[in-house]
Amino acid sequence: MKNIKAVICGASGYTGSELLRILAPIPAVDVTALTSEQSAGKEVTALFPHLHTYKGVRFEPLIKEALLDKGDVFFLALPHSASQEAVEFFHSRGKKVIDLSADYRLRNPLVYELWYKINHRFPDALKQAVYGLPELYRDKIRNASLIANPGCYPTTAILALYPALKQKIITTEHIVIDSKSGVSGAGRKSDVAYSFCEIAGGFKAYGVAAHRHTPEIDQELSAIAGSPISVTFTPHLLPIARGMLSTVYAPLKDPGMSLDEVHSIYRDAYQDEPFADVLPLGKYPDIRNVRGTNLCQIGMAAAENGTLIVISAIDNLVKGAAGQAVQNMNIMFGLDETTGLGQLPVVP
Amino acid sequence: MKNIKAVICGASGYTGSELLRILAPIPAVDVTALTSEQSAGKEVTALFPHLHTYKGVRFEPLIKEALLDKGDVFFLALPHSASQEAVEFFHSRGKKVIDLSADYRLRNPLVYELWYKINHRFPDALKQAVYGLPELYRDKIRNASLIANPGCYPTTAILALYPALKQKIITTEHIVIDSKSGVSGAGRKSDVAYSFCEIAGGFKAYGVAAHRHTPEIDQELSAIAGSPISVTFTPHLLPIARGMLSTVYAPLKDPGMSLDEVHSIYRDAYQDEPFADVLPLGKYPDIRNVRGTNLCQIGMAAAENGTLIVISAIDNLVKGAAGQAVQNMNIMFGLDETTGLGQLPVVP
Amino acid sequence: MKNIKAVICGASGYTGSELLRILAPIPAVDVTALTSEQSAGKEVTALFPHLHTYKGVRFEPLIKEALLDKGDVFFLALPHSASQEAVEFFHSRGKKVIDLSADYRLRNPLVYELWYKINHRFPDALKQAVYGLPELYRDKIRNASLIANPGCYPTTAILALYPALKQKIITTEHIVIDSKSGVSGAGRKSDVAYSFCEIAGGFKAYGVAAHRHTPEIDQELSAIAGSPISVTFTPHLLPIARGMLSTVYAPLKDPGMSLDEVHSIYRDAYQDEPFADVLPLGKYPDIRNVRGTNLCQIGMAAAENGTLIVISAIDNLVKGAAGQAVQNMNIMFGLDETTGLGQLPVVP
Amino acid sequence: MKNIKAVICGASGYTGSELLRILAPIPAVDVTALTSEQSAGKEVTALFPHLHTYKGVRFEPLIKEALLDKGDVFFLALPHSASQEAVEFFHSRGKKVIDLSADYRLRNPLVYELWYKINHRFPDALKQAVYGLPELYRDKIRNASLIANPGCYPTTAILALYPALKQKIITTEHIVIDSKSGVSGAGRKSDVAYSFCEIAGGFKAYGVAAHRHTPEIDQELSAIAGSPISVTFTPHLLPIARGMLSTVYAPLKDPGMSLDEVHSIYRDAYQDEPFADVLPLGKYPDIRNVRGTNLCQIGMAAAENGTLIVISAIDNLVKGAAGQAVQNMNIMFGLDETTGLGQLPVVP
Repeated sequence: MKNIKAVICGASGYTGSELLRILAPIPAVDVTALTSEQSAGKEVTALFPHLHTYKGVRFEPLIKEALLDKGDVFFLALPHSASQEAVEFFHSRGKKVIDLSADYRLRNPLVYELWYKINHRFPDALKQAVYGLPELYRDKIRNASLIANPGCYPTTAILALYPALKQKIITTEHIVIDSKSGVSGAGRKSDVAYSFCEIAGGFKAYGVAAHRHTPEIDQELSAIAGSPISVTFTPHLLPIARGMLSTVYAPLKDPGMSLDEVHSIYRDAYQDEPFADVLPLGKYPDIRNVRGTNLCQIGMAAAENGTLIVISAIDNLVKGAAGQAVQNMNIMFGLDETTGLGQLPVVP
Repeated sequence: MKNIKAVICGASGYTGSELLRILAPIPAVDVTALTSEQSAGKEVTALFPHLHTYKGVRFEPLIKEALLDKGDVFFLALPHSASQEAVEFFHSRGKKVIDLSADYRLRNPLVYELWYKINHRFPDALKQAVYGLPELYRDKIRNASLIANPGCYPTTAILALYPALKQKIITTEHIVIDSKSGVSGAGRKSDVAYSFCEIAGGFKAYGVAAHRHTPEIDQELSAIAGSPISVTFTPHLLPIARGMLSTVYAPLKDPGMSLDEVHSIYRDAYQDEPFADVLPLGKYPDIRNVRGTNLCQIGMAAAENGTLIVISAIDNLVKGAAGQAVQNMNIMFGLDETTGLGQLPVVP
Repeated sequence: MKNIKAVICGASGYTGSELLRILAPIPAVDVTALTSEQSAGKEVTALFPHLHTYKGVRFEPLIKEALLDKGDVFFLALPHSASQEAVEFFHSRGKKVIDLSADYRLRNPLVYELWYKINHRFPDALKQAVYGLPELYRDKIRNASLIANPGCYPTTAILALYPALKQKIITTEHIVIDSKSGVSGAGRKSDVAYSFCEIAGGFKAYGVAAHRHTPEIDQELSAIAGSPISVTFTPHLLPIARGMLSTVYAPLKDPGMSLDEVHSIYRDAYQDEPFADVLPLGKYPDIRNVRGTNLCQIGMAAAENGTLIVISAIDNLVKGAAGQAVQNMNIMFGLDETTGLGQLPVVP
Repeated sequence: MKNIKAVICGASGYTGSELLRILAPIPAVDVTALTSEQSAGKEVTALFPHLHTYKGVRFEPLIKEALLDKGDVFFLALPHSASQEAVEFFHSRGKKVIDLSADYRLRNPLVYELWYKINHRFPDALKQAVYGLPELYRDKIRNASLIANPGCYPTTAILALYPALKQKIITTEHIVIDSKSGVSGAGRKSDVAYSFCEIAGGFKAYGVAAHRHTPEIDQELSAIAGSPISVTFTPHLLPIARGMLSTVYAPLKDPGMSLDEVHSIYRDAYQDEPFADVLPLGKYPDIRNVRGTNLCQIGMAAAENGTLIVISAIDNLVKGAAGQAVQNMNIMFGLDETTGLGQLPVVP
C-alpha cells in the first residue's frame, strides 16, 4: 500500500533524475507528478532512457495550484532563487517540503543576498527551515516541515570537521578545504564549458575564493564551534561524471595528539550513523566506492607539523543531493532512515 | 651536425619514453644508446609504437663500461636507489649526468636514509649535485656536471611558493600543498592497483602525510625562506594519464595585502622565465593546457580570511621529469634553453 | 528464511565481485563460502572495499570436499580449463553448478580442444551442460543441473541475431559482428597492457579473426539457423571499465523488406523477455543505459544496400556474466526470474 | 622569410584551432587573419588558452572583400552550406582555397542536394574542385586551386580499401565500414548531448544508415573500383576527445588468398606515402598512437570464412581535417609534403 505521495519539481536535471532513480523501488512512496518547464510534455525516458520503469510518465509544467493536492511531500530541485516562492507556497499550505536549492540554507537573509544578489522574500519561511544534515540535526528534521537540503561541498566539509570541532581539538583559523567534484555538480545543461571535449583529460580549480558554498560551510562550522569561522575553500573539477572528495586541513590544538585519539573521536561521533563511515586508520576513501550510494566515507592522518588531514568522499548527486533528500524524507515520515538507500556501488 | 651524444639509462619507463620523444627532433642531439634490464634486446617500438622514428633501435642492458664512450650526457631514469652507483660511475669519469631519480636530490644523506631506508654510498658525488630547477638555480646548472632533476610534486610546489617566500609575504607555518597527479606518475608497471578498471571513474588521496617528496619540498622551501619549513603535503591520484596540479595555501603576513601586489611579485619573479607562466588575475591553470609541454602555469587568489591560494600546473612527465631534464641539458651545453621544448599542447 | 546456499569459487575477480554484489540483497540466497587461491585468508573488503556488506567475510582456498556441503548451488568463476574438474566434482555429487568459464560451452570437445589447446576430460558432464541463455533455452535451464553460462560477446551476438535467423530473413554468409567491450572483460589482473596509462584515451581491435568466442557464436547461430554458420567477429577494447556493444551486419534475403516488418519480428520474439529490450525504431542502445543491469538493449536499421544492422548492448559483467548466472539460478530454483536483477542503472 | 600568407575562416572550432596549432611552427607560413562570427573581437587565447603563441591575436568577422588581399591560401572551416559562397568568392578571384566543409566533396550536385537538403549554387566551381586525398590524387592536388578536403570517416574508409579495390581482390557488395570516432568530430558546441556527463562512460552508434559521409565514401570507392559501390556504414561515438578507427569488412574474391599476399598489395600501394603506415602483420592500430599526428595506421587480417578485415586509425582532427589540409597546402605550394606534420604523438 502506497502511502506517501511525492511530487518532484524541477525533475529534468540530474538531481531530479536521481530522485526518480532512488524513489522508484521504495514501496511506501508513489511519485505522483514531476515538473519541468523546458521539457513539459516530454516523457521521462526521452531525457533519461535509463529510467525505464517510468515509461509513459511525462513531465508537466509547474502549476502550483494544480500540484498541491498531488503530494504529501514536495521535492524542489529548482534553480537557486526560483525555489524561494515555490517552497513558501507548498509549505504555507501545510505540505512537507524538501528544498534542494540554496534558497533556504543560509539563515541570515543578508548573507543570502550578498552571495546570491537577490532579496529573500520569505524570511518567515526561512526561519522555519531546518538544515537537512541528519548527522547534526536529526531530531529537528524529524519534526520539521521545511528542509533546506545541504549543498554537496558543505556536506563533505561539515562531516569531515564536525567531530573535531565539537570536541575542540583543532584551531579554527587556518582551516583549508580543498574539494574536487565530478562534472554532474554543474547540472545538466548546454554549455560548451562542460562539453566532453573541454573536460576530458583536464583538471582545474574554479570559483577560487568565490564559491557560493563558502558561506554555507562557514555558517554550519561556526554553529558547531560556537564561534565565527571563515574557511579557505577551493573547489576543483574532476574529469569524471559523479563523485566528490574533500581534503580538509586544520591545525591540531595539541600537535602531539595521537592519531588514534583523533580517530576514536570520529568513530564515537559517527558510531550510530548509517551513512557516515569512518574508515580504519591507514585507509582513505576513493570516490568510486561511494558512487551511486548515500555513503560518506572518511579517512584521516596527521602531518608531522601537527596539521590534521581529514578526507571525506560522497556521491555529489546522492549524499550530496537526492539521497540526502530521501534520507530526510525517511526521517520526516518515520520510515527506516535507510529506506531506498541500501544499494551497493557498481564497481569497477 | 650532431654534436651531443646522449645515453638514456632506464629508457623503458614513461620518463624514458618522454626523453626519447623530446630528444628525437633536436638536431644537435644524437641518442646513441638506451638501456632497459627487462626489455634488453627488444625494439623501442615494441614497447612504444608511437615512437616510430626509433624504428629498428633496441634497448640494451646497462653495462656501464660499454656505455661510457657512447655519451657526452647520461640521462638516468633508473628506480630510486638503483641510480646511486650509476650516477657516480659516469660522473666520476668526467661525464655530464642528469639523474631523474631521487637519489641525489636530498642534500642531507641522513634525511635520504630516513625516507628511502638505505644508506647513501656516495656522499662526495652528492655534494656536487645541483638541484635542477632552472628557475632557482640556473647559474649553478650552467656549470654543473651532475644534476639532480627535481621530482614532479616538488616542481609544482616550489614554483608556486618561490616568489612569495623569497619576498617574505607569507608565514611559513600552515603551508598546505594539496596536489593531484595523473597516473603516469606511478610509472609503467604491472600492478592491479594501477589497472584501468581500478582507476577509471575514481579519485583518492594516497601517501597521506607520508609521501617521499615531502622532504624534498621542505628542503627547497627552507632554502628559499632561510628558515626551516615543514609543509603539509597530500598527493591525490587523478583518473587521467598525465598532468599535475597543486593547490597551495599559505597565510599572508599582511591579510590586507592586495592581490594585485601579490600578482606583481609573481610576474616580476618569473618575467624572464620561458616555462613559468604567471596567468592574468582571474585565470587559473588547467592541466590540459600544459599537457605534453614544459610549461608551468600559475594562477592565484586570496581567501577572505587572508590565506593566499596559488595554483600551479605542469605535465608531470615533462616539466616534472623529462622536459625539465632536457631544459637542464640545454643549459649545461649552452643550447637555447627552449630547444626541443616549444611544442604547443594537443587540445582537446 | 534463507533457503538457497550459494558457494562462489574464484570470487576475487570482477565476475566474482559482481556475483557478490548481486546476491547480497536477495533474501532467498545465502552466500556461504567464497574461494580465491591468491587471496585466501584475506577479507573480501580488502580487495573490494565497495562490498561493505561483506565486512568480516574472508576468501578461502578451493578445497572441494570441504565446500561440498556448504552449497546448494555452485557458481564457478574460475579461469578457463581450471573449471573442468571442479564443475564435474560438484555436479557429479548432485549439486547444481553454474559455470562461468568457457569449459562447458562448446558442445563438441574437438572444437574446444582446437581453440583452448587442451583436452576436455569430462565429456559426460559436457553432454549434460545446458547453454545458459534464457531467451533461447529457458525450459532446458529450468531442469538443468549444469549450466554453461554464455560468454559476454556471444550473448550480444546471439540476442542480436536470434529473431532474424529463426525467421530466416537474413542470409547466413557475410554475417559481420563488430564488438566493443569495456576493459573489465579482461579480468582483474596485473598486466601493463591493461594499466590505466596504456588504455586511457585509446581504442583498438584485438584478437582479430582469432578470438575464442568465435566458435561459441558459430555454434549457437548454427543451431538457430539449422545450418553451419561461420561469422566474421572482431572485438575491440573501449576505454571504459564496463559495458559491451555489438554492431551486427547481415544481408536481408529480401532487400526490400521493410524495417517495420523486421522490427515486429524482433518485438514478437522478445515480447515476454524481462531482459531483452527491443527499442523503438530510431532509437539505439547506449552502454551507459544498461550499465550495472541485466538488460540487453537492441536497436536496428537497414542500409540502402539491403544490409540489416542490429545493435545490442549489455553490461559485460552482468548480462554478460554474473547477472545472467543469477538469472539462470533464479530459473533453476523457481524464483522469480528477475530476483536481484531489477536495479536501475546509475546515470550519469 | 615568410612567403605564404594563410587566412583561416571559421577558426573558432576545433578544426580551426588545429589549423592554428599545426601552422604555428611552420616558418614558411604566416597566418594573417582568422575569422569567427560568434567570437569576432575575442582573443584566440580566450577560447584556446593552449595556443599561447597567438597571444594578442583576435578573431575578426568574415568580411570577404577585406580578407581578399590578406591571403595566398584560404582555409575554410565553415559549417556545411555556409562554405559554398565563400569558397567561390576567394577561388574566383585567383586565390588557392582549401575547403574543410563538405560543400565541394560530392561531384554530383544532385547527390549533394539529396543529402544536404540545399541546392549547390556554384556548379562551375564544384567542377574544378579536387578531392584532397593525397594518397589518391596527389598529382591533381599539385595543380589544383580548389581543394575539397576529405571528411574524417571517408579518409579512414578510403585508405583502408583503396589497395584492395584497385587490385580487385575483394567483391564490392557486402562492404561493411564500422567506424568509431572521438567526440571532437561533433565540433565545439553547446549541446547537452555532447556534455561530459552524457558521454563519459558511454558508447553508442549514431546516424545509423543515415550519415552524410556515406555518399562521399560511395563516390570515392566507386571511382577506384570503376563500378558503383554502396557500402554499409555505421559511425559510433567513443568516450574520448579525439581519434577515429574504422574496421572495414569485405569478402575476398578468392577466399583462399593468403594474408601475406594481401599485405604485400597494401605495402606496395603505400610504400612511398609519408602518412599511410601499413603495420606488420599481427599488429593493429591504436588510436593513441596516431593522436595529434597526420598518420593513418593500417592493419589487416582475414576471417576463416574468407572475409578481409582492414583496420585504419587516424586523428580525426589532423589526418581527418586540419593536418590533411596542411598536407594539401604543402603539395600545392611545393613545400616538403611533411612540413609541420612530423610531430610524434604524446603517449600516454
